[in-house]
Amino acid sequence: MKDALIPQNLTKDDVAALILAAKKRAGLSWDGIASAIGMSPVWTHSACVGMNAMPPEKASALVAVLELPAEAAEVLSESPTKVWSQTVPTDPCIYRLYEIVGVYGPTIKALIHEEFGDGIMSAIDFDMEVTRVPHEKGDRVKIEMSGKYLGYNAW
Amino acid sequence: MKDALIPQNLTKDDVAALILAAKKRAGLSWDGIASAIGMSPVWTHSACVGMNAMPPEKASALVAVLELPAEAAEVLSESPTKVWSQTVPTDPCIYRLYEIVGVYGPTIKALIHEEFGDGIMSAIDFDMEVTRVPHEKGDRVKIEMSGKYLGYNAW
Amino acid sequence: MKDALIPQNLTKDDVAALILAAKKRAGLSWDGIASAIGMSPVWTHSACVGMNAMPPEKASALVAVLELPAEAAEVLSESPTKVWSQTVPTDPCIYRLYEIVGVYGPTIKALIHEEFGDGIMSAIDFDMEVTRVPHEKGDRVKIEMSGKYLGYNAW
Amino acid sequence: MKDALIPQNLTKDDVAALILAAKKRAGLSWDGIASAIGMSPVWTHSACVGMNAMPPEKASALVAVLELPAEAAEVLSESPTKVWSQTVPTDPCIYRLYEIVGVYGPTIKALIHEEFGDGIMSAIDFDMEVTRVPHEKGDRVKIEMSGKYLGYNAW
Amino acid sequence: MKDALIPQNLTKDDVAALILAAKKRAGLSWDGIASAIGMSPVWTHSACVGMNAMPPEKASALVAVLELPAEAAEVLSESPTKVWSQTVPTDPCIYRLYEIVGVYGPTIKALIHEEFGDGIMSAIDFDMEVTRVPHEKGDRVKIEMSGKYLGYNAW
Amino acid sequence: MKDALIPQNLTKDDVAALILAAKKRAGLSWDGIASAIGMSPVWTHSACVGMNAMPPEKASALVAVLELPAEAAEVLSESPTKVWSQTVPTDPCIYRLYEIVGVYGPTIKALIHEEFGDGIMSAIDFDMEVTRVPHEKGDRVKIEMSGKYLGYNAW
Amino acid sequence: MKDALIPQNLTKDDVAALILAAKKRAGLSWDGIASAIGMSPVWTHSACVGMNAMPPEKASALVAVLELPAEAAEVLSESPTKVWSQTVPTDPCIYRLYEIVGVYGPTIKALIHEEFGDGIMSAIDFDMEVTRVPHEKGDRVKIEMSGKYLGYNAW
Amino acid sequence: MKDALIPQNLTKDDVAALILAAKKRAGLSWDGIASAIGMSPVWTHSACVGMNAMPPEKASALVAVLELPAEAAEVLSESPTKVWSQTVPTDPCIYRLYEIVGVYGPTIKALIHEEFGDGIMSAIDFDMEVTRVPHEKGDRVKIEMSGKYLGYNAW
Amino acid sequence: MKDALIPQNLTKDDVAALILAAKKRAGLSWDGIASAIGMSPVWTHSACVGMNAMPPEKASALVAVLELPAEAAEVLSESPTKVWSQTVPTDPCIYRLYEIVGVYGPTIKALIHEEFGDGIMSAIDFDMEVTRVPHEKGDRVKIEMSGKYLGYNAW
Amino acid sequence: MKDALIPQNLTKDDVAALILAAKKRAGLSWDGIASAIGMSPVWTHSACVGMNAMPPEKASALVAVLELPAEAAEVLSESPTKVWSQTVPTDPCIYRLYEIVGVYGPTIKALIHEEFGDGIMSAIDFDMEVTRVPHEKGDRVKIEMSGKYLGYNAW
Repeated sequence: MKDALIPQNLTKDDVAALILAAKKRAGLSWDGIASAIGMSPVWTHSACVGMNAMPPEKASALVAVLELPAEAAEVLSESPTKVWSQTVPTDPCIYRLYEIVGVYGPTIKALIHEEFGDGIMSAIDFDMEVTRVPHEKGDRVKIEMSGKYLGYNAW
Repeated sequence: MKDALIPQNLTKDDVAALILAAKKRAGLSWDGIASAIGMSPVWTHSACVGMNAMPPEKASALVAVLELPAEAAEVLSESPTKVWSQTVPTDPCIYRLYEIVGVYGPTIKALIHEEFGDGIMSAIDFDMEVTRVPHEKGDRVKIEMSGKYLGYNAW
Repeated sequence: MKDALIPQNLTKDDVAALILAAKKRAGLSWDGIASAIGMSPVWTHSACVGMNAMPPEKASALVAVLELPAEAAEVLSESPTKVWSQTVPTDPCIYRLYEIVGVYGPTIKALIHEEFGDGIMSAIDFDMEVTRVPHEKGDRVKIEMSGKYLGYNAW
Repeated sequence: MKDALIPQNLTKDDVAALILAAKKRAGLSWDGIASAIGMSPVWTHSACVGMNAMPPEKASALVAVLELPAEAAEVLSESPTKVWSQTVPTDPCIYRLYEIVGVYGPTIKALIHEEFGDGIMSAIDFDMEVTRVPHEKGDRVKIEMSGKYLGYNAW
Repeated sequence: MKDALIPQNLTKDDVAALILAAKKRAGLSWDGIASAIGMSPVWTHSACVGMNAMPPEKASALVAVLELPAEAAEVLSESPTKVWSQTVPTDPCIYRLYEIVGVYGPTIKALIHEEFGDGIMSAIDFDMEVTRVPHEKGDRVKIEMSGKYLGYNAW
Repeated sequence: MKDALIPQNLTKDDVAALILAAKKRAGLSWDGIASAIGMSPVWTHSACVGMNAMPPEKASALVAVLELPAEAAEVLSESPTKVWSQTVPTDPCIYRLYEIVGVYGPTIKALIHEEFGDGIMSAIDFDMEVTRVPHEKGDRVKIEMSGKYLGYNAW
Repeated sequence: MKDALIPQNLTKDDVAALILAAKKRAGLSWDGIASAIGMSPVWTHSACVGMNAMPPEKASALVAVLELPAEAAEVLSESPTKVWSQTVPTDPCIYRLYEIVGVYGPTIKALIHEEFGDGIMSAIDFDMEVTRVPHEKGDRVKIEMSGKYLGYNAW
Repeated sequence: MKDALIPQNLTKDDVAALILAAKKRAGLSWDGIASAIGMSPVWTHSACVGMNAMPPEKASALVAVLELPAEAAEVLSESPTKVWSQTVPTDPCIYRLYEIVGVYGPTIKALIHEEFGDGIMSAIDFDMEVTRVPHEKGDRVKIEMSGKYLGYNAW
Repeated sequence: MKDALIPQNLTKDDVAALILAAKKRAGLSWDGIASAIGMSPVWTHSACVGMNAMPPEKASALVAVLELPAEAAEVLSESPTKVWSQTVPTDPCIYRLYEIVGVYGPTIKALIHEEFGDGIMSAIDFDMEVTRVPHEKGDRVKIEMSGKYLGYNAW
Repeated sequence: MKDALIPQNLTKDDVAALILAAKKRAGLSWDGIASAIGMSPVWTHSACVGMNAMPPEKASALVAVLELPAEAAEVLSESPTKVWSQTVPTDPCIYRLYEIVGVYGPTIKALIHEEFGDGIMSAIDFDMEVTRVPHEKGDRVKIEMSGKYLGYNAW
């Protein structure tokens, strides 16, 4: 009875599951999906799994490419609440990134202060690329991040 | 009496304090110090603050450039124990990097798996660069990381 | 012997202690100190206790007003590492602010998204004022924060 | 069999879901809903998502405006149990507020003590407003909080 | 050299140590000290160990009664920063109080809501008494707390 | 199939939900329910929400008063496992009690030791009352706890 | 309705449950399953419970041996997200391993540094064997781990 | 005055510092020290840094080899209190071991149960060896642990 | 569809629920059940709630005594994964045991070392009895634990 | 200057260090010390390391036996604040006790409830003995605890 009252709208997690199933069915890569909607793979994946909001036209394009239910477009363009439950990630692939922050965080901070002044690299006005770099001793993963420098203001 | 027994060798923290004081005295930048010893600024800072070990010849070069006590060279070339005490860093400049791992970690993982297979980006066979990118709406911080791809083996 | 080697520079904590002692000795209020250096009380206190960096001319002005040792000016203008050790603050005056974030955080987020789009209020390009508002049923504390809206970019 | 015994009343979370669905259906903003029941947007949102209790007449007004089931009015006027599960919030929009408490908490405390004496700003006899302030370098979010000063008593 | 620069003022912890030593020397009880300055034992102890601020005249009276150094009076009247480092206290005498909050907290909340409405018992406008109640099966500790009811306001 | 095997007995949580629904239906207060079974409101609420065990005759009385299913009486008289999931409670009404333990815990401990000797106030042989005290500046919540003094034994 | 939209693919946990049931039904040991697919018992168990990815031909072999649904092969060969929820494991058999890391971790580190230089043992290019060693005072468990040495690079 | 009363005996940490200094002075390796006292390198290092107790004759031998003060022998043979402060180790070399426990702990448990029955591998009646294994694609670190199987008893 | 694929075997938790229901139905005590299968009450309860594995003949005996489904016997004899989710238990009856470990743990350690040497009391080769001891000032709970002494070995 | 003001009384930790040194000097065991003052070894050790308060006559006896400074007697008889800093103890000897609480805590609780009713075993009106029990397969550690049963009261 109560269940009938409460609306069961799609959530970002539901849409992510729909996307993953459609991607597998269509045999597409993230790179392919990203190209199809004219965005980068990092941003596209991130928005698909609910960590970024899609502009409406990109959401519509994705719905078309992957033949998702129409309702998904609106969900994809809503502002997400970004939640991660593991303060320290356990997955080895993600943990290594956490370790890099622990080891090199103070270094990055020192170099930013020396080059720019007292401020930070924005994680909002931000973009990222992940690429493969061939190397004779074994190919390398390259991660490039770029964020706007934001200086503290005094008042 | 007991204090007389226990040797008081320089620690990595002591050497870091010596370096910071010498750097200020000499009016050098991290970039300048790094150039002087023929290494990159990220690695140089990291080794100076005790998060990496210096090859002996680089340690000697640094001691010469900054006129540190001779004992410092040996300390700089010892393998460090890498410790950070804040599971979640509070400093805003470092926190933003932690946030990026939380938000984009699963994305980086997905793209590595798609491009390389089941494995990770090494944080050991690894290098990093931090640069300033001029931009009309405000200059940007660029961080480039490169780590060897390591694939899981089955046995 | 080792102690003689290691330089004992003033830290931000040392300078904060010097400022608090000088302030008491001079019988000044934070408001008074802020006026004397032409800045706001919130920013001035924050920089004095080591949570913000002072532009060199403000640091010099403060050193003059409070008759601090000259070395303090340089320390005041260095970029701070912002550390707080209590994840949940215990002091009742500060805890109430933490509680407000817990209770009203999702509300502030919803209103920002509705008014501006997908983004946040900057805590870097930010200012704050704390004032007393007379009220017949008991005076009130007014806290006004203003931060630049930063929108997520898609790429 | 057991399920039949246990009553399935609406919870505050259920009502929040009903409100969000009705709001979307009706194309209303929080500002619009707040106006319709004669209250502020911050308080209205907070009560709708279950972080504050509505006076019965406001609850009835809301039920009328959004065409909610009658049972919702009673739920909206019950005293909530305020729970947040993330000691440190991960969502960037909310984290920035947490960061502001970490950085500026001791400053706010010092200024309250200087202006009022030994006491705190109440988080109960409290109100808040979130507004947009146009600015040539980018519009700003303004948050104004006002809470009754409560002085410690000695006995 | 640096040590000579930094002022070594008495802290609240120092004054607490002075008080405990003077109390032992004088053979006084907390009850006796409280009577001598015309306050209650709970408040007196709390202020002596640095968890409350003393009005100047009470601080002076205490300094006189216990023959403390004059500087202590000012320290006693400063607003304390209330810090406790154990989130869950381990001392059995204090843990039992924590357990009571865990077990009976929701009950106290329900009864306050039923009797007063949506609000809380203030921990600021608050007083407490601890007394011994003779009982044939073993004397009992009686703790009486009284705090002003603070109702949430809607705006 | 498996579900058919596993018995679905009422739990203490189920019974609490039944009681809350019956209480609302009958328009009773906790005070009224407590009177009806001849017990205090604090203990009655606590046992109803599963934090205390009811003597069988009180459980039967409650079942009669609230017209609960007969099975509920047995559940009410079972020894509960007392669990609270928030180490630090977030609800403001309960947090204030936690804060009081943090601020005044050491004081209560000191006064118990001075008055009784080395021991504690029992949280088991314990009772509590919550009452409203009229006051011209705003009514007050009064909480009275009484627990048997338990002295440590030496052996 | 919503449930109908969301695809219900098998997860790694589902496949693990299928494998455990099939293993019990077939009366096979881990050793037997491992032999049947030509891999080691440690790796085979780990991949079956979702902590490693199977090469497609091994996944197919396992599906054949255990008569699993065809869909399981694809799930077994996907890259897992490795999650463990207990920071400190409580199961005594696993805790002892954690304790060994706590007690002997610094020793292993010191010996690696002495023998190899500044680097680590890889947990990715890694294999392990668990065997029984007969012993007159009680048989022993032998665990052999082998991981590639990875040296830090300087740049 | 108080300092004169309190005895300042060497602690295990003091002795570890003495050993590390003597080792460096003598140009010895852990392997060399272990040989000199007729024990294994893992156990020798562990006992030197205070994580195991030395039988008196081994302690005396070590004191002789490294020319330590006589008092050190007694300290080395005392039962240690084994403490590690980081629940999750941050040093990459030690973290990888922690990760192996997280990933393979359930596998080791399953294989022990299958081979031995319900029990564990002892971490007390335990030994370990760390060796270098040449390998054409890069040498490997081999860690061999052996612990007595301990079966649960039923009573 | 997916649900049909996944086997729904009884878990240890399911069997515990079956046992508790059968025990209530049969009006048996733990003491009675233990006698009926010829084991002690502590071990019997522990194995019934899934914290120990039953030898097959004891499992069969229990199934017969309590008229459980046959499948339960196999589940009872499987090696359990011992999990407790509260690092610090909140239930007062269990917390007191935790407190005893906190207060007397170092004492037990010191006495074991003095009497036996460097080692521990096993928690695996272990048994326990809980009994009632009549006492004129109130009966006492007696807990007797016995575990094999395990000495550290040097190698 | 400030140091001269602050009294440096002996703390419980200081006295514990004095006792340990005197014990070693006198070649006494805990058993011997306990006999000399007519108390049990568990209680004696616990009071010596600051986890229990000594009755004045026992404190005086101890001071005489171990030739401690007179001031120590008063410190030994003060009520201790019982603090342990590791929520989960790492020392293997103490951890096993913690593990026993995790594994058998619910069992002890169930048996107490069955035998006595709703209540607990006191950790205050409590005593303990640790003894060696010869056994052909290896001697055993026996720990016997006895605490008064405390029943919950209803009011």
